[in-house]
Amino acid sequence: MRVEILCTGDEILTGKTINTNYSHIARRFTEVGLDVHWGTTVGDDRATLLKAFLQAGERADAVIVNGGLGPTVDDLSQELAAEACGVPLVLNEMWLERMTQSYARRGRVMPANNRKQAMLPEGAEFVDNPIGTACGFAVTIGKARFIFTPGVPREMRRMLDEQVIPRFLKIAGVNVVTRLKRFHSFGIGESRADEMLAGIPGLAIDGDIKLGFQAHFPELETKLAIRAADEAELMRRLAPVEAEVRKRLGNFVVAEDNDTLESVVLAALKSGGQTLAIGETVTGGIVAARVAPLPGAEGVFRRGTIAPAVSTEALLKESGASIALAVDVKLDDSMDKPDSGGTVTIAIAGAKGSVTRTARLVGNRDWVRNGACELALDGLRRHLKGLPVDERIDFERR
Amino acid sequence: MRVEILCTGDEILTGKTINTNYSHIARRFTEVGLDVHWGTTVGDDRATLLKAFLQAGERADAVIVNGGLGPTVDDLSQELAAEACGVPLVLNEMWLERMTQSYARRGRVMPANNRKQAMLPEGAEFVDNPIGTACGFAVTIGKARFIFTPGVPREMRRMLDEQVIPRFLKIAGVNVVTRLKRFHSFGIGESRADEMLAGIPGLAIDGDIKLGFQAHFPELETKLAIRAADEAELMRRLAPVEAEVRKRLGNFVVAEDNDTLESVVLAALKSGGQTLAIGETVTGGIVAARVAPLPGAEGVFRRGTIAPAVSTEALLKESGASIALAVDVKLDDSMDKPDSGGTVTIAIAGAKGSVTRTARLVGNRDWVRNGACELALDGLRRHLKGLPVDERIDFERR
Repeated sequence: MRVEILCTGDEILTGKTINTNYSHIARRFTEVGLDVHWGTTVGDDRATLLKAFLQAGERADAVIVNGGLGPTVDDLSQELAAEACGVPLVLNEMWLERMTQSYARRGRVMPANNRKQAMLPEGAEFVDNPIGTACGFAVTIGKARFIFTPGVPREMRRMLDEQVIPRFLKIAGVNVVTRLKRFHSFGIGESRADEMLAGIPGLAIDGDIKLGFQAHFPELETKLAIRAADEAELMRRLAPVEAEVRKRLGNFVVAEDNDTLESVVLAALKSGGQTLAIGETVTGGIVAARVAPLPGAEGVFRRGTIAPAVSTEALLKESGASIALAVDVKLDDSMDKPDSGGTVTIAIAGAKGSVTRTARLVGNRDWVRNGACELALDGLRRHLKGLPVDERIDFERR
Repeated sequence: MRVEILCTGDEILTGKTINTNYSHIARRFTEVGLDVHWGTTVGDDRATLLKAFLQAGERADAVIVNGGLGPTVDDLSQELAAEACGVPLVLNEMWLERMTQSYARRGRVMPANNRKQAMLPEGAEFVDNPIGTACGFAVTIGKARFIFTPGVPREMRRMLDEQVIPRFLKIAGVNVVTRLKRFHSFGIGESRADEMLAGIPGLAIDGDIKLGFQAHFPELETKLAIRAADEAELMRRLAPVEAEVRKRLGNFVVAEDNDTLESVVLAALKSGGQTLAIGETVTGGIVAARVAPLPGAEGVFRRGTIAPAVSTEALLKESGASIALAVDVKLDDSMDKPDSGGTVTIAIAGAKGSVTRTARLVGNRDWVRNGACELALDGLRRHLKGLPVDERIDFERR
């Protein structure tokens, strides 16, 4: 099945807003096995919108339209959808009533121009938006089924998962539930992770469970996307593969799903009743800035110091914390040579004893700093969990 | 003139990479007065590329194609451009020679598959890429002039400004030079800035000098885009408007063009022979992390402290710095109420005396933290430049 993504709005057409809605939609479709084959961006202009709808209706089987459902005069999606279908706009009484009540609950009167958001093409299928005033709808234009969604990212994301993907999978002839399992790792590149996961039955780029990677240096995200007839079958097939992936990536997995390296570190500190001090030199505050502002860090993070030299001994003494992390970086004198970079030294000291780790990273200043920050927090994670702190990573040179 | 942007590549089609090339190109076109009316994203697929080229050739007058010029088998732009034009690919000897020499200068032999990058559609206009192995080229498909550019952002951006924009402006019938003047401000919203700049002759959204805004909370970017027949005319018309904008935005302008608030603060500290210590509480290192890692900050930034309480007196004493900046934030007990937020207190002490400033910011934790960080650095900027530190900003409630 050929799926298209059609984004509307002058702000994204002219580049004022970066179109992250497009990449989110495309990624989610790809993850559930829907084949995205064309993306279109057009502005708030009647003739262009009509042409875009008609051309997509000729090329595709299913189209998601994003944007243009707001209450203002430049929101034209319903109007041009109706024109492309050759039908009038009609009032959806149910949606008007829901909007009116939603305003009333907040003690407000619905502005008159919101009524426009309840005008849908005659015969359109209503597509619910549980958290906004722009409802979605579905119509057929040419040979494609179109689903219209609002441009507000929070509303679009929820409708995409709850409304659009199930409908598109149904059009594709698959009645399924889907799941995306994510592992966040540090220390291995995409090609090495690919090798480490080779040969797991059913797991492949085009396998029964789709394997995908996304690099966000210095971390790598490993994604397992699965479709199944029902939840029970999904768990039955996913569980052993998920366990095998966790085992193979091993110590390099820093967090799973919505957790982050820093949230995992914070949770480990909390569960051990520990308090933390961080000392930094060249990283200039970026290590502390990942931990200290986290919700719940108030009772754990005691003190941060940014100075030309830091030691765990001094940190423990001046902070009264139970564990100290010190990160030092010596950047090369000249950062212009091909193999220039810096040498990172991390030291951890506390009740469980002390440990140090040195690694040479190659790259520009920001690259080395970000690598040092990750290396420091990952070292602390490993120390807290009793894992080897000096395990070699792909980014270091020895 | 109708301009289109056509981006190719599976990574952007499937959302694996966010398409920031699109937004950069669209913004630059809009800034120089070229009318972007359509954007297309397609993958590395022969039939789709051909259709995309032909359809754009029917709709547009000028098309920039981005991506697909690399040395690997999935880079198909030259091949399909030739097919759309109905001509064969021919070797560009000059480009092959330049690539060969470029490899030789780095002591390497050019891999055989790079030869593919010198194969251009017969009759194509060569478009120089001074910093990469993928040269650009221009051909006519349908009624539109197409210019092909590489997907590497650094190469694309340079070619866009030096090669593509001048050619497209020429097609549009305007032989001009262009300039984009940028002001970065803190403390005023887009609508207030718009009011402050009202009535400046020639300056408007569709004026002789195009006015545009881009909000990157907590900063606002104000852009003046100008086209002129030559450099002398450009300066003659821009200079008075630029001076008037600078005057009206006044103390709120924190930096211009490629400068940033933190680079301006660092330069002011340096020129005054000062050294700096920063103390933070709830911001947890994000203030220090904006200053300490800057090139040239080594001799200026003495020490940072993140602790439950900080004072300028203690900071000066323990760091030996000549000036201290302390930032404290008290977040509301409950962050769930509609008007919740936090109270920011900044204190600056040094040879020029000491000053404090308190502001209440409304928003979620990250919003308040980022606002506090900006308020602190802007307070320091104002203090160093002898400007009022307590000038009211749009984001604060009193």
